[in-house]
Amino acid sequence: MAYSLFPGGKRLRPILALQACRVVGGRTADVLPAAAAIEMIHTYSLVHDDLPALDNDDLRRGRASSHRIFGEAMAILAGDALLTHAFEVLSGRSAPSRHAGRRLQAITVLASAAGVQGMIAGQVMDLEAEGRPFDYAKLQRIHRGKTGALISAALQVGGILGGGGESQIRALRTYGDGVGLAFQIVDDILDQEGSPEGLGKSIGKDRRDRKATFPALLGVAGSRRRAERATARAVAALGPFGRRGAPLAELARFIVERAH
Amino acid sequence: MAYSLFPGGKRLRPILALQACRVVGGRTADVLPAAAAIEMIHTYSLVHDDLPALDNDDLRRGRASSHRIFGEAMAILAGDALLTHAFEVLSGRSAPSRHAGRRLQAITVLASAAGVQGMIAGQVMDLEAEGRPFDYAKLQRIHRGKTGALISAALQVGGILGGGGESQIRALRTYGDGVGLAFQIVDDILDQEGSPEGLGKSIGKDRRDRKATFPALLGVAGSRRRAERATARAVAALGPFGRRGAPLAELARFIVERAH
Repeated sequence: MAYSLFPGGKRLRPILALQACRVVGGRTADVLPAAAAIEMIHTYSLVHDDLPALDNDDLRRGRASSHRIFGEAMAILAGDALLTHAFEVLSGRSAPSRHAGRRLQAITVLASAAGVQGMIAGQVMDLEAEGRPFDYAKLQRIHRGKTGALISAALQVGGILGGGGESQIRALRTYGDGVGLAFQIVDDILDQEGSPEGLGKSIGKDRRDRKATFPALLGVAGSRRRAERATARAVAALGPFGRRGAPLAELARFIVERAH
Repeated sequence: MAYSLFPGGKRLRPILALQACRVVGGRTADVLPAAAAIEMIHTYSLVHDDLPALDNDDLRRGRASSHRIFGEAMAILAGDALLTHAFEVLSGRSAPSRHAGRRLQAITVLASAAGVQGMIAGQVMDLEAEGRPFDYAKLQRIHRGKTGALISAALQVGGILGGGGESQIRALRTYGDGVGLAFQIVDDILDQEGSPEGLGKSIGKDRRDRKATFPALLGVAGSRRRAERATARAVAALGPFGRRGAPLAELARFIVERAH
């Protein structure tokens, strides 16, 4: 668990959760455990995705993947344990009564984003799409599940735990949808170009060519344009926050600029 | 998910959760979603335990195990999804504000029982114990994790969601520890005798002989005596509930009598 959780990584999702909490005027302490839990969920998904039965990837963030070091059995269990521990942390064992309603709502949002309507749906669609023809709508559905759902959930959870109102949570969700899509498109571009930046989900070379990706469908230039449009939509959604939204707007632009 | 969740099984854990809720005077409706979630967590653990990298079991409850039907990738994801969905159900998406504090506490208890201090710890110790010498203390630790933790959690969660007081939850926990131990001992006996009743975790024949089990250490008669003692402890813990505890006492005796 520690091997996969603490090699660094960009910590994009926790950062987004913290910023979302701040933009609605919440305190960092209220979202910190959830931010850690979100990174655990993200990490569990990487550990399981790398398994031989799934993407069969030997490398993750420049190091040997979990199952290459600890064996398949331990990698499966480490992933299970990270996912489980995320919910233990989210339930706030240390202070169970404080903001209980908000915390339950955050658990619902995260479990839903990680589950059969979100991340796992994306993973299943991705597996089923391998080697088959795909169109833009399908590609978007896959990536909205695999990457977008958790990114959007991180933002909503930050807003919920920060005490944001309904319209603020909705704005954060729209921002998250745009940023999530842009992030995945950029990831696909970096993957295709074999960049060592290879972030989210660099997949095994033997399977890369059979995967549904944005550059495969739209070309690199076309993919970049889509990412820029998604980023613009994300930034526009921050309007209601006024100048407070500046850090989130900057993050959105940082994500899309990695592809240049 | 449905293939593994709905082939029947005894539903022991949900039944225990329902009875625990009743024994503290709670309403069935308050515990029903949690009871379903507990069965999802149990089922996820079976699906993952059966995987080739773990117990490599082709059969589960008399049918082909998940990965034999859907392949390893889908079995891993189905298990992940069942675990995730359990927490979505526990967070009570339908009525997020009702008894929020209790529900958070239930999530903490269940996540902790399913996680690195509970079920997964037992699984890891079990894997590491394979083919090595073991003593009673170690065997008990393994099984307390693998089986006991979730059974005990089912009872605590029933008590918590039913509105039970602290001393009632403690009594349910003691009862659960006894019943969980008895259950695992009986399971080991049935497994050894090759009974088709083979319930909880019948393991692949090729690995059975290398596993740490109660009959291997204490013999069948000695194992039976231990199970009976654990059951007696469980029933004694029900004292404070008076006649209301009768259904739980019956359940405890039912569990140990399977071994005769």
